[in-house]
Amino acid sequence: MADTGNIDILVSEVGPRDGLQSIKSTMPTVAKKAWIAAEAAAGVREIEVCSFVPAKILPQMADAAEVVTYARTIPGLTVLALVPNFRGAADAIAAGAHKIAIPLSASETHSKANLRKTHAEVLEDVRRIVELLRSLPADKRPGFEGNVSTAFGCTLEGPVPESKVVELAVALMEAGCDDIGLSDTTGYANPAQVRRLIRLVRKEVGEDKLSSVHLHNTRGLGLANALAALEEGITTLDSSLGGLGGCPYAPGASGNIVTEDLVFMLDAMGLRTGIDLDKLLKVRSILAEALPTDELYGFTPDSGLPKGYGPGGWGIGPRAG
Amino acid sequence: MADTGNIDILVSEVGPRDGLQSIKSTMPTVAKKAWIAAEAAAGVREIEVCSFVPAKILPQMADAAEVVTYARTIPGLTVLALVPNFRGAADAIAAGAHKIAIPLSASETHSKANLRKTHAEVLEDVRRIVELLRSLPADKRPGFEGNVSTAFGCTLEGPVPESKVVELAVALMEAGCDDIGLSDTTGYANPAQVRRLIRLVRKEVGEDKLSSVHLHNTRGLGLANALAALEEGITTLDSSLGGLGGCPYAPGASGNIVTEDLVFMLDAMGLRTGIDLDKLLKVRSILAEALPTDELYGFTPDSGLPKGYGPGGWGIGPRAG
Repeated sequence: MADTGNIDILVSEVGPRDGLQSIKSTMPTVAKKAWIAAEAAAGVREIEVCSFVPAKILPQMADAAEVVTYARTIPGLTVLALVPNFRGAADAIAAGAHKIAIPLSASETHSKANLRKTHAEVLEDVRRIVELLRSLPADKRPGFEGNVSTAFGCTLEGPVPESKVVELAVALMEAGCDDIGLSDTTGYANPAQVRRLIRLVRKEVGEDKLSSVHLHNTRGLGLANALAALEEGITTLDSSLGGLGGCPYAPGASGNIVTEDLVFMLDAMGLRTGIDLDKLLKVRSILAEALPTDELYGFTPDSGLPKGYGPGGWGIGPRAG
Repeated sequence: MADTGNIDILVSEVGPRDGLQSIKSTMPTVAKKAWIAAEAAAGVREIEVCSFVPAKILPQMADAAEVVTYARTIPGLTVLALVPNFRGAADAIAAGAHKIAIPLSASETHSKANLRKTHAEVLEDVRRIVELLRSLPADKRPGFEGNVSTAFGCTLEGPVPESKVVELAVALMEAGCDDIGLSDTTGYANPAQVRRLIRLVRKEVGEDKLSSVHLHNTRGLGLANALAALEEGITTLDSSLGGLGGCPYAPGASGNIVTEDLVFMLDAMGLRTGIDLDKLLKVRSILAEALPTDELYGFTPDSGLPKGYGPGGWGIGPRAG
């Protein structure tokens, strides 16, 4: 669904969803819109703009439908929404999301704690969502990703068997999802595990059905894990501007990969993201103003770009030679 | 020189040198000794304990000889000292360092600013040091590493030609060094560049003559760069406990890779470092007490080890089958 023309790697911004749902503050809708518009203007081509959960549970997401409606007006932007269940999916579809994603926690303990559902119950929801999607005309039908969360370990269960992750990925595809994502919800992953699990899952669901991973930086390994994923041929990487939603310095926080650092790494490596790094760095000011009490993270924003670094990177990378 | 039996990767702790020379505080000698002893007890097998520079320039290193003498008493520990010139090398050799390393900045501007020497002048020093080393009986002769610093870019010159790095590595070997190291002094490196430069240098100096890299985390890419180096077959990685010496949040700071995060990554990947991660994490308290006003960094220390993580890692990695 994403416009991936002329880019090598799709950086999928998840801050408006994963970032905002992890902090106490609620960002005003107008600021969300400004953020999304500014990132799109910087060249970001996919944004997970919200989660369709009841406002009672996550007041930060009460304006989900309005945000989707707005984001859809931005040309070239793929508007992604997280949906925890059938009801959320129906709302996201009605609002016009280009793509929806449902999390299925590999740890059943986590699934019960988070969604109050067993694996079987989530898969039943997936089947109902697929039925709804198939009842729509093709041009009104969003893409549907089944996302195996806590795929690299769980804060409740500890290690998660890789066979379980593979089994659930297969079950999601059999239930009718279009593709699979893997999420390191807990920041437990290491590069060897990332490589191994991508290979195992792809072997069962097909090479082209797993192209996206969602990694956290909780133990500082986020970009190393992203590199491992890239080298396995993953082409979509999630990240959050300013690492919004926290880092290990704030206990319990999610610790998403910082978009600015990820884009710097990819750009410096000579991989095309379509994103203008200077413009991207300036988007932080929107967050700083709208969320004055929340901390923003990122090494590259604090240290600045290297001397002599310009669009196209170093001038000594693959692009120059 | 290092005792690398039963380990896959040698983590070389550089905090007592690179960390301490980058902060304003001077650590009491007794604390340096306690730090070195505690890291060795945690399983660290090589420590760069000091730099032999005049105390007028770096008062933090005034006790260099005493620290070397002490560190030599620790069984199994390789005691490394940085030497900026012939005089420093003579002092380090007299003190009994097992290995000495001289930096040669790929950026001549940086070399002049840092050591007040041109490339030719540093290489002349290298030749004099080699003469001195060769005059010693074999069992009193430390190893001698030529370290190409600012190898991945320079804060003064910007990009550094890769051909220059290769040329200087060859010159260091021709001048009589035993092996070569590459340093990302400025935190400019990216994983593609790390791979490329390691290959280029090895092609000229020989596969076995470049086994060590020194990476910084200034832009958050430290561990991703370390992973790239590992995948090229590098077996020695430098890092600093607690990221001592700063991070980008403190402008101008060095931003070494954090030893705790590096060891967690290696250990979780199933690579043997010989280091007990729990013991290593406890060594931080020595730094916290001795340097109460300096900040310590590290994601893993703040977030803690994953649930169910024990010696041998996850129980689902290569070690478990």
